[in-house]
Amino acid sequence: MKSADRRVKIAILGASGYTGAELLRLLASHPNAEIVALTADRQAGKPIDTVFPHLFGRGLPDLVTIDSVDWDGVEFVFCCLPHGTTQEVIAKLPRHLRICDLSADFRLADVATYAKWYGHAHRAPELQDEAVYAITELVRPALGNARLVANPGCYPTSAQLPLIPLVRRGQIDPDDIIIDAKSGVTGAGREAKQGSLFSEVAEGISAYGVANHRHAPEIEQGLSAAAGRPVVVNFTPHLMPMNRGILSTIYVRLANGASVADLRRTLEAAYAGEEFVRVLPEGRIPTTHHVRGSNLCLIGLVADRMPGRAILVSVIDNLVKGAAGQAVQNMNAMLGLPESTGLGQQPMFP
Amino acid sequence: MKSADRRVKIAILGASGYTGAELLRLLASHPNAEIVALTADRQAGKPIDTVFPHLFGRGLPDLVTIDSVDWDGVEFVFCCLPHGTTQEVIAKLPRHLRICDLSADFRLADVATYAKWYGHAHRAPELQDEAVYAITELVRPALGNARLVANPGCYPTSAQLPLIPLVRRGQIDPDDIIIDAKSGVTGAGREAKQGSLFSEVAEGISAYGVANHRHAPEIEQGLSAAAGRPVVVNFTPHLMPMNRGILSTIYVRLANGASVADLRRTLEAAYAGEEFVRVLPEGRIPTTHHVRGSNLCLIGLVADRMPGRAILVSVIDNLVKGAAGQAVQNMNAMLGLPESTGLGQQPMFP
Amino acid sequence: MKSADRRVKIAILGASGYTGAELLRLLASHPNAEIVALTADRQAGKPIDTVFPHLFGRGLPDLVTIDSVDWDGVEFVFCCLPHGTTQEVIAKLPRHLRICDLSADFRLADVATYAKWYGHAHRAPELQDEAVYAITELVRPALGNARLVANPGCYPTSAQLPLIPLVRRGQIDPDDIIIDAKSGVTGAGREAKQGSLFSEVAEGISAYGVANHRHAPEIEQGLSAAAGRPVVVNFTPHLMPMNRGILSTIYVRLANGASVADLRRTLEAAYAGEEFVRVLPEGRIPTTHHVRGSNLCLIGLVADRMPGRAILVSVIDNLVKGAAGQAVQNMNAMLGLPESTGLGQQPMFP
Amino acid sequence: MKSADRRVKIAILGASGYTGAELLRLLASHPNAEIVALTADRQAGKPIDTVFPHLFGRGLPDLVTIDSVDWDGVEFVFCCLPHGTTQEVIAKLPRHLRICDLSADFRLADVATYAKWYGHAHRAPELQDEAVYAITELVRPALGNARLVANPGCYPTSAQLPLIPLVRRGQIDPDDIIIDAKSGVTGAGREAKQGSLFSEVAEGISAYGVANHRHAPEIEQGLSAAAGRPVVVNFTPHLMPMNRGILSTIYVRLANGASVADLRRTLEAAYAGEEFVRVLPEGRIPTTHHVRGSNLCLIGLVADRMPGRAILVSVIDNLVKGAAGQAVQNMNAMLGLPESTGLGQQPMFP
Repeated sequence: MKSADRRVKIAILGASGYTGAELLRLLASHPNAEIVALTADRQAGKPIDTVFPHLFGRGLPDLVTIDSVDWDGVEFVFCCLPHGTTQEVIAKLPRHLRICDLSADFRLADVATYAKWYGHAHRAPELQDEAVYAITELVRPALGNARLVANPGCYPTSAQLPLIPLVRRGQIDPDDIIIDAKSGVTGAGREAKQGSLFSEVAEGISAYGVANHRHAPEIEQGLSAAAGRPVVVNFTPHLMPMNRGILSTIYVRLANGASVADLRRTLEAAYAGEEFVRVLPEGRIPTTHHVRGSNLCLIGLVADRMPGRAILVSVIDNLVKGAAGQAVQNMNAMLGLPESTGLGQQPMFP
Repeated sequence: MKSADRRVKIAILGASGYTGAELLRLLASHPNAEIVALTADRQAGKPIDTVFPHLFGRGLPDLVTIDSVDWDGVEFVFCCLPHGTTQEVIAKLPRHLRICDLSADFRLADVATYAKWYGHAHRAPELQDEAVYAITELVRPALGNARLVANPGCYPTSAQLPLIPLVRRGQIDPDDIIIDAKSGVTGAGREAKQGSLFSEVAEGISAYGVANHRHAPEIEQGLSAAAGRPVVVNFTPHLMPMNRGILSTIYVRLANGASVADLRRTLEAAYAGEEFVRVLPEGRIPTTHHVRGSNLCLIGLVADRMPGRAILVSVIDNLVKGAAGQAVQNMNAMLGLPESTGLGQQPMFP
Repeated sequence: MKSADRRVKIAILGASGYTGAELLRLLASHPNAEIVALTADRQAGKPIDTVFPHLFGRGLPDLVTIDSVDWDGVEFVFCCLPHGTTQEVIAKLPRHLRICDLSADFRLADVATYAKWYGHAHRAPELQDEAVYAITELVRPALGNARLVANPGCYPTSAQLPLIPLVRRGQIDPDDIIIDAKSGVTGAGREAKQGSLFSEVAEGISAYGVANHRHAPEIEQGLSAAAGRPVVVNFTPHLMPMNRGILSTIYVRLANGASVADLRRTLEAAYAGEEFVRVLPEGRIPTTHHVRGSNLCLIGLVADRMPGRAILVSVIDNLVKGAAGQAVQNMNAMLGLPESTGLGQQPMFP
Repeated sequence: MKSADRRVKIAILGASGYTGAELLRLLASHPNAEIVALTADRQAGKPIDTVFPHLFGRGLPDLVTIDSVDWDGVEFVFCCLPHGTTQEVIAKLPRHLRICDLSADFRLADVATYAKWYGHAHRAPELQDEAVYAITELVRPALGNARLVANPGCYPTSAQLPLIPLVRRGQIDPDDIIIDAKSGVTGAGREAKQGSLFSEVAEGISAYGVANHRHAPEIEQGLSAAAGRPVVVNFTPHLMPMNRGILSTIYVRLANGASVADLRRTLEAAYAGEEFVRVLPEGRIPTTHHVRGSNLCLIGLVADRMPGRAILVSVIDNLVKGAAGQAVQNMNAMLGLPESTGLGQQPMFP
């Protein structure tokens, strides 16, 4: 059944975090989505509006433990649990469920790389083999039959969308890519941490995880596949005082005689007809203000003053195209629904 | 024709300000709205995305002058022009147009009051007679036949929604009402003013227009009508560092033996069944975070420590229920469309 | 010895919070202050710059436990510990120490009131008798001989400075005082709490502790003393997105035939010659931007539109005049040093 | 006379902007500074506290026109005028004045470069020859006899302090330097511009002047001199929602067999004993929060994951070390005063 009035029965695991709340915001306008279960083990028994008062009056189910979900009444699962926990939970889920996992657990195909960056051997390697890493626009044909999709990280989405078409075409040097990324604070989650306090974040900016962030191997995995050989990149994230948004400024070296105009043509061709990924006209640089709340990724491209180099700027809302929005987009693709269903939210500016 | 697929041909006058942009955000999901003209006299000839880059790719008409609009192709007008100018423009518009005016020009029914607060005699007093001042929930029956609606100010919306039912019922003393309101910066508009600069606003709060703000007579007009006699209130607005939102903390004295529970019952009855105005359960106080981007007005109510007094807290998004959202709601009511059409945007938190 | 080059040996207990850090900022320019001990029981053994990197290179002592301090080498103590703990710690300190306590433990003279608001019987009532509650300007003569000073809360400082002279003179009705206060987030401390996260606070405002905040009895204690009889006030605090600052908008009713001009004269007389408390000229309203980083309290006064009423606006930096700055000012007064020593920091705008 | 109680008579030209106000903040604690004139041609006749209310009660002279200043009573001038205007004003000043110019007018030694980037031929090229471009730490010996000092731009200060010692030593490749800089909004000045409005800046980040910013040639001038040959760099500034601060993330390639440890040693040696420039210990990355309000420049250094590369992070307060603070430091050096006089302001955190 793919009719317009089909209702997919959905469970959200880990619904008490920002990503869970964002899924609920987006799915409110999804005509085919029916929320049947919301889990949050430590908050089980509470109405969702006790943890998210803005959901007051939505008629959503109360929070329950994962163990108490009746899986027979569920078709699709969004999993918003912490990494590590996720692989154990998903391994136990019935096989009839189709799953979009928003954690990092199934993003790294290589178990050795996973173990190195996450500090423990993967506990469900067979699922890791099964999982499809899905920046929707780049793997669309594989999604129709996927049971388990690994929804990409926010930074990797913002970096790979502009870079992968260029690396595939050999128009930039894969060994000279610098990704300077700036993120809003929701990316750090809703856990009470000193570093995420208003007073520690407001009125300043800090680099973190310099040369050491877990999204680096995820980006390198995608670029290595595109290049056909191992690639190491610079990825330097910064935490800045805004709720939402990632702006990645990406410094690249032209290769194989390519010009900046060639790069532009490649990107325009790669994303022609895409609803959510847009290459801005020459002379325009995107800002995060212009995607807030929407599933858009905007890409700008400028020639560098340094000869033979170019600058790419990409922006997304980290909670939408960088998390919940892309997850809904992936669900739509998995279920054969029109890909933009439920994703009509326009950028909210200001 | 009121069928579900009816398309209303809409012009937005003054589309280069925040209110115009917000109308375009909301109307993007309105199935019956067709934008046929956008005006901005000083920007005429430009694509709308040169003044609002986030509207890139929406397929909207270019900006034109008001004089160049072909009114035969327009049915409904949202007027987002500055006060003073507005009355002159609207006076010249063809009579077949139905109009929702978002300026202050038709909000004050009494021309002497208008002249006192705006510094000049009203130039279209006959239109002022015709105009319906419309907090939708409070004047709904009058809207079906209205040609010209005065959309309320943002502060007055946040103050009158909780107060009017209580004053009507005589449960609070109309001569002892203090409205301490805190607003985001978009309320000051998009004009380049020193006082609206980031560096002047961020990291601080200031009271302004103390005992002297133009929204005071608008609030008093509504409360006087509810009380059946002239009422003077304290209204003290504050400018604070957020883009959107108004929180009004309202201090009232109980009257005629009413208890706080009585006040709660009155408000719950007044807004029972309303989609956009909600009285929170006892013990809950609303915050602006929980209405951002939505057309909601949330109201909380608490007994004061001072005997015989109560505290009301109301929150809205100043650009939505305080401006563009209520304008769309009014349009829907004027045209006989379901009142919530195009207003399904959920609160965006964070 | 009160000579200009006297060096007072100072210990700061609880130096890992914002108030401790602020004391270190201010005391860096205090020519008579020598920091000899910094305590933080859970961080003992660490250099202070591991908890506050901005203190790198200051040559400050490492953090130690309270028990390991050599009190013989200490003359003056700033106590920045949590309430409850504080009274137990101070009760055990040697009697030769003079102490300025920044917690709430010795602010409420009445032990029954303390027990009611803090949920347990006071554990050092004899010290509570001894303690001097010290808004410096209001109790200056008592400070020279004080051994233990209770440094006032931030909100109570901002509220009492404008109100007490007026209540003392009987020029306002003590039974009709409404204090609507707006605070920056540092007031909530450095503890990792979900409610203090950037993403929960930014882009919004919320009322909290409505009719129920622990600073209400502290304010009422001062106003009752000024009135000569028990006074109950409305005190409604709001949390807003800025690091520092409190703006209190205070609504009062004139009494005993007093005019707004009379109120102004009273306030001007009360604070004539004061360096840190200033009554602004008629027509000026202070903002928190204009005191940030300084020990100033600015007060503005406006006639209300409601007959017989007035509006007071006072602003302070909650970490300076509302905490560490007033503490240094109190220390200076206790030790016979010029009261403004070390407090020359100018407002930082922007 | 260089005695400790010497009072230098100072005029600030263009005192109504943020840089002027910041000079007044810093000089308030400078024992040798006497402000004798403040100019602002369009605001002449007004007390300074009408344009900067936070300067209320400071006893400063009223604003006057430049033409009305009695130069005989002035020894030192801080010039905070717009570029273009500055060169004309300074050319007419009496020769007995010593001048620190905070505009861009005398920063580029090459008149052709100036003309290219500023769009007009320089109108005082003989003064440009005379001017000393002064990052204090790098040109200290030349300042004692300088009459006219060009105070560096904020971005160039943050970029050159970490880079110049490394380029001089040949330890990094001067042809592969990428400077990704993030700035607070005060850098854009106090002029009312739409792009600086709170609502345009808050809750987002944007790159601007990409491959085209006027600070690029200033940085290149310094690095070219250090390299002994022309150097072109990537400099990409970003505007983000904070009042103060610049964080520059600088990506470099090691050269001539140098290791990251070598770079660290070079920087530590270059700034050993400096009060305001500090190289953080290995493993620490500075943030702008930790320099706010102070004259500090903090530098961190990390090995890149990409072989043969390193990442430098430098932070300053753009209004202090990036403008007014360095100007005072330069004045001190010019006049033979201890260089840190008046610059004892500690970082304000939070």
